[in-house]
Order: sequence, then C-alpha cells, then structure tokens
Amino acid sequence: MVSALSPLAVSLGDPAGIGPEVVAKCWDSRRELGLPAFVAVGDPRSLSAVWDGPVAVVSDPREAAQAFDEGLPLLAVAASSGDLPGQPSMAGAHCSLDALELAVGLARSGSCAAVVTGPVAKHQLYAIGFTHPGQTEFVAERCGVSPSNVAMMLAGPSLRTVPVTTHLPLAAVGETLTSALIEARGRATLRGLQRNFGIAEPRLAVAGLNPHAGEGGALGREELEVIEPAIAALRAEGWIVTGPHPADTMFHGPARARFDAALCMYHDQALIPLKALHFEEGVNLTLGLPIVRTAPDHGTAFDIAGQEKADPRAMAAAIRTAASCARHRAANPCA
Amino acid sequence: MVSALSPLAVSLGDPAGIGPEVVAKCWDSRRELGLPAFVAVGDPRSLSAVWDGPVAVVSDPREAAQAFDEGLPLLAVAASSGDLPGQPSMAGAHCSLDALELAVGLARSGSCAAVVTGPVAKHQLYAIGFTHPGQTEFVAERCGVSPSNVAMMLAGPSLRTVPVTTHLPLAAVGETLTSALIEARGRATLRGLQRNFGIAEPRLAVAGLNPHAGEGGALGREELEVIEPAIAALRAEGWIVTGPHPADTMFHGPARARFDAALCMYHDQALIPLKALHFEEGVNLTLGLPIVRTAPDHGTAFDIAGQEKADPRAMAAAIRTAASCARHRAANPCA
Repeated sequence: MVSALSPLAVSLGDPAGIGPEVVAKCWDSRRELGLPAFVAVGDPRSLSAVWDGPVAVVSDPREAAQAFDEGLPLLAVAASSGDLPGQPSMAGAHCSLDALELAVGLARSGSCAAVVTGPVAKHQLYAIGFTHPGQTEFVAERCGVSPSNVAMMLAGPSLRTVPVTTHLPLAAVGETLTSALIEARGRATLRGLQRNFGIAEPRLAVAGLNPHAGEGGALGREELEVIEPAIAALRAEGWIVTGPHPADTMFHGPARARFDAALCMYHDQALIPLKALHFEEGVNLTLGLPIVRTAPDHGTAFDIAGQEKADPRAMAAAIRTAASCARHRAANPCA
Repeated sequence: MVSALSPLAVSLGDPAGIGPEVVAKCWDSRRELGLPAFVAVGDPRSLSAVWDGPVAVVSDPREAAQAFDEGLPLLAVAASSGDLPGQPSMAGAHCSLDALELAVGLARSGSCAAVVTGPVAKHQLYAIGFTHPGQTEFVAERCGVSPSNVAMMLAGPSLRTVPVTTHLPLAAVGETLTSALIEARGRATLRGLQRNFGIAEPRLAVAGLNPHAGEGGALGREELEVIEPAIAALRAEGWIVTGPHPADTMFHGPARARFDAALCMYHDQALIPLKALHFEEGVNLTLGLPIVRTAPDHGTAFDIAGQEKADPRAMAAAIRTAASCARHRAANPCA
C-alpha cells in the first residue's frame, strides 16, 4: 500500500514567509522524519533565497518519487518578482495563489495523493481580490463542497479538536451557534475520523459553551437549547457522541483518552488546549472534502523568515498526517 | 524560617465529599510529599468513615506541630449527623461552614500560618442560607476585603492564570469586562506575585478576549476599547505588563516562560490551559487578602467519595503552596 501512494503536493505558501524554508528543511530531514515522497509547488527563487540544497525541477508529479532521493522535487509556478524573505508583496500573493491552485488541482486529479498547503498572507491575498476567508474555504469551493459541510480539525499527537465557529468576535459566537451547524460539523468530524484515520466507531466529545457547561442552565442556556438537541440528533443517527462537557475538564490526559475528537464551540476553546499541548506539531486538516488536505498550524511568520530559525516540525507533521490519511483512504475507498 | 512557621489550618470541606480522604492521604504521605505540619479542621467522623489512621485531636493549633508525627492533628467542629461518604446533607453543609469559619479565623489571628480549604457543596450551602457565591468571597468578607479587589489564581508547576470574570454565561463576559475590573484583578495579581511568590518584578501577560486578540478590531473591539487601556494604566504604575495576546498562543512552553502569570478574560480561558497541563495538581489561591488562602482545584466528587479512589495530589499541592506563600510573606513582611 505504502509504495503505491502517489507523491504529495506541498504548496510553498507565500514566497516571503517561512513556507519555503520549512519545506526545504523537511526534505533535508526526510529520512529521520520518516517522510514520504512529496513535490513542492511554488516559486523556485523563494527556495534558493533561503536554502542551498538540491532542487529537482519536475514537470509532472510522477517524476517526483524517483527524483526525491536526489533533490527536492519542485513544480515551478510563474515566479514572483523576487520577494525577499520577510518582505511580502502583491506579486508574492499571486504566486502563493497560483501554487495553491495547482497543488489542489493535482490532488483533485489524483496525480498527487493529498495536498499540504504552506502558510499564506491573508491580507495580501485579499488585496489581490481573493474573496475566500482562507485557504480552507478556497479548497472547499474547488472541490465543490459547501463551507458549512467541511470542518477544520486541529490535530496533535494526543488531541484532535474541531471548532464549530472560527473567526468571529467572542460576543457573536452564541448567536451564530445553531443545532444544525453543530450537527453538520459533528457529522463531518465523525465521517472524517472514519475516512482519514481508519476509526470504525469514532467517539466525539462535544464541549459546552459556558463555564461548567452551563450548570443546568444557571450559567447559560445554549447547552440546553442548542447543543443538547444537536447531540441527540447525531446519536439518533447511530454515532457515539458525549456531552456537553465542561470545557475545562475535557483536555487532561485521562479525559483525552475517552474521545477521538473534541467538537468545540469557538476558536480559542479548540485552539488553546491544542497549542498548549502540541504547539510545535499542530496539524490543520480539512474534513469533509473528496481529497486529503492538511496544513501546518502556523502562519507565514514574516518576522523570522530567512533567518534559518523556522521550526519544520509542524510542516513535517502535516506531511506525515496527509500521507497517513491518504493511505487510510486508499485502503478503504468505500469508507 | 521554616521551623518558625505555624501549622497550616486545613478545613476538611463537606464531610460527605473527598476532602477528608485527600487530607488523610496527605498526612499518610507527609514525608514523601515534603508537607509541613498542618491541622485538619472538621468532623472527626468524616475522617474515621474513610480512614483508619491515627487522629490526634487537639484543642489549640500550637499542639499540632508536636502531634504531627504521631497522628493527623484535628480541631474538631460540632459533628454532622454522620453523613455517609457520597451522601451529602444539610447537616454536613453546616459542618463544612463551621470548619471554614474556624480555619479562616485561625489564619486571621495568626495561630495558623495559612488556610487551605477543602471542597464544599455549593448547592447545599445555598440551601442553608449561605449567601456568598463561593468560599473565596466568604474568606474575602471575613478579611474585610471587597470581592472586586481579590483575584482567583489557578497555579500549577509551569503556569499561573487569573480569570478576570468567572461564573458567568459566555455571552455576558463582554458586557461585564471593564477596564477598571481588569486593572483591579491585574493589580491584585501583580501584588500577589510579589507577596506570595517573592517575585520582585513580576511579569503579567494579559490575554485578548477574541480570536487572534481581535486582529486589530476586525474580530471584536474589546481589545482596543477595554483591555488595552487597562494595560496602559497598569504600565503607567510601573508594572511589567504585556498584551493583549492571542489566547491560543500564550500557553505553550516557550510562551509560558515569558510571564509569571496570565490574566485571562473568562473562566475557561484560564482553566482550559491550566487543567490541560496540570489537572492533577492545580491549586486555587486567593490573592489580595491579608492571609494566605489556597485550595485544591477540584470539587467534592461525591461520586467517588469513600471508595479510596480520590487523588491527593491537588490537596498536597495546595498545602505545599500555602506553606511556600506563608514563608515568602514571613521573610518579607513589608512586601
């Protein structure tokens, strides 16, 4: 099964960010890190600006597996105007978008087994007319999936969390939460655990919104009126779902062992525990897509780009997780 | 300095909860755990119901230090009607309140170096006419301190957090947060770090309320309008204060090393990271009081009371932390 896996497509992200550096470092340490063959997609100059290792420019991902031992395989997209590390530009934003488009297309066509996306600069993308909130929604649209039916999973070695709402003011979370949205994210999560992680009977733990999960209504009614009905609906479909749990007692070791993923009501509820426990190796997975898509859970880090300081562990974890998910899907295509 | 410390007063909490068991287990393991002399305060029968070790009933805390090697020193309060472990009653609530009152009085009078409070059942206390939200507010009142000038600190080996707001629905957090409240909690925290932990120039990291700390106003305006002015005011007093920080990137190892305490805007923002990292040994400290008060960061756990399952590590940490804070205060009474 392993040898049959096509190479993964890894977009370099913004050429002025740390994406090129962490991808190159992953290739440097491919054996120690146990990484499968992958092909980088992006601007060749963004690599040469931060790395003097061997690049194997390819024109087809099928060449990547063989080239992988000799150099970092690269599918070159139209070069940017030569951004310096740490100095983002509009041209760099165009370049990162072209790389994303190509990498997603390779995964959709089956030429690549999965897509791993490097970090982009959202503000720059918005400035060139990008209308999606982020890469996740872009990938969903290219795959013909509604954003409400995908779920963003943050995964580390001992914890997987999925936020139901993401980039909203905290005060808007309550009015945005609906039973239908919680159900949709829960379903995407449960199906995602089956398809991508090979867990036949996944266990989902649903967090409450309020302190102590509302304490029976004394500290808020969303648990009773919104979250519990969603849990009941998912259970009625046969899924193993518990909660609503007080969020503060869900994330210690013995509690984490009782579920395969935690469904969280807002951004920080999902991201605080994940990053407290697994900051250096957090992986962002998009569930609910026909393809496997992962990303390292960090940004462009323009402030340290080009200084050889960037930590490649999250990118390595994103590549490893993408390969593992692709293998689970290949082994059981009907899951 | 160490030998001069008076014994600590440890209230057993609700006689039907796990308080008596964890205090007894602490005495059993006093040498391995490096615990100072303490005197338990509560119902003798709640101890004998769950433990067959030696009890040394004393009538004055001064006897406790000498008795400590022979048995668990106990100041007996009027016994409850003989609650069974796991079966709380009104009489037990009265007993837990009497024990709390006596233990706090011993610390206020100086007969005991600090007070450590065992877990109580709030619903039972409310039923007998207790009008404070919790033990913290009761202790503050007995010490003549306004509840808005105290701060609840949760402390573990690698993290201290202080929530500005506590038991509120999440939707009410935004409207409750004011610059004045953040300043008052911040000041209590900074002074508490000096007095109780001997940190001459404490560093306070203030969390944002919204994802990404509001992203310059795009994801909420509380950072700009409420939190930043409070930070500016504290800095103007000479304190070392940073923030508002995105809450999800404050709690990994290298980030934790950059502050002595994190000031959090709501309950779960403070408690999720603390319990994810230090569930078994979390200590609750009340800052801003003339006395030292700590508590284990767990409840009565009626469901496991009397089954010898209760983990004494949090109670041991509460006792050890109280002693350490009392020593810091004794060493520098003017801090």
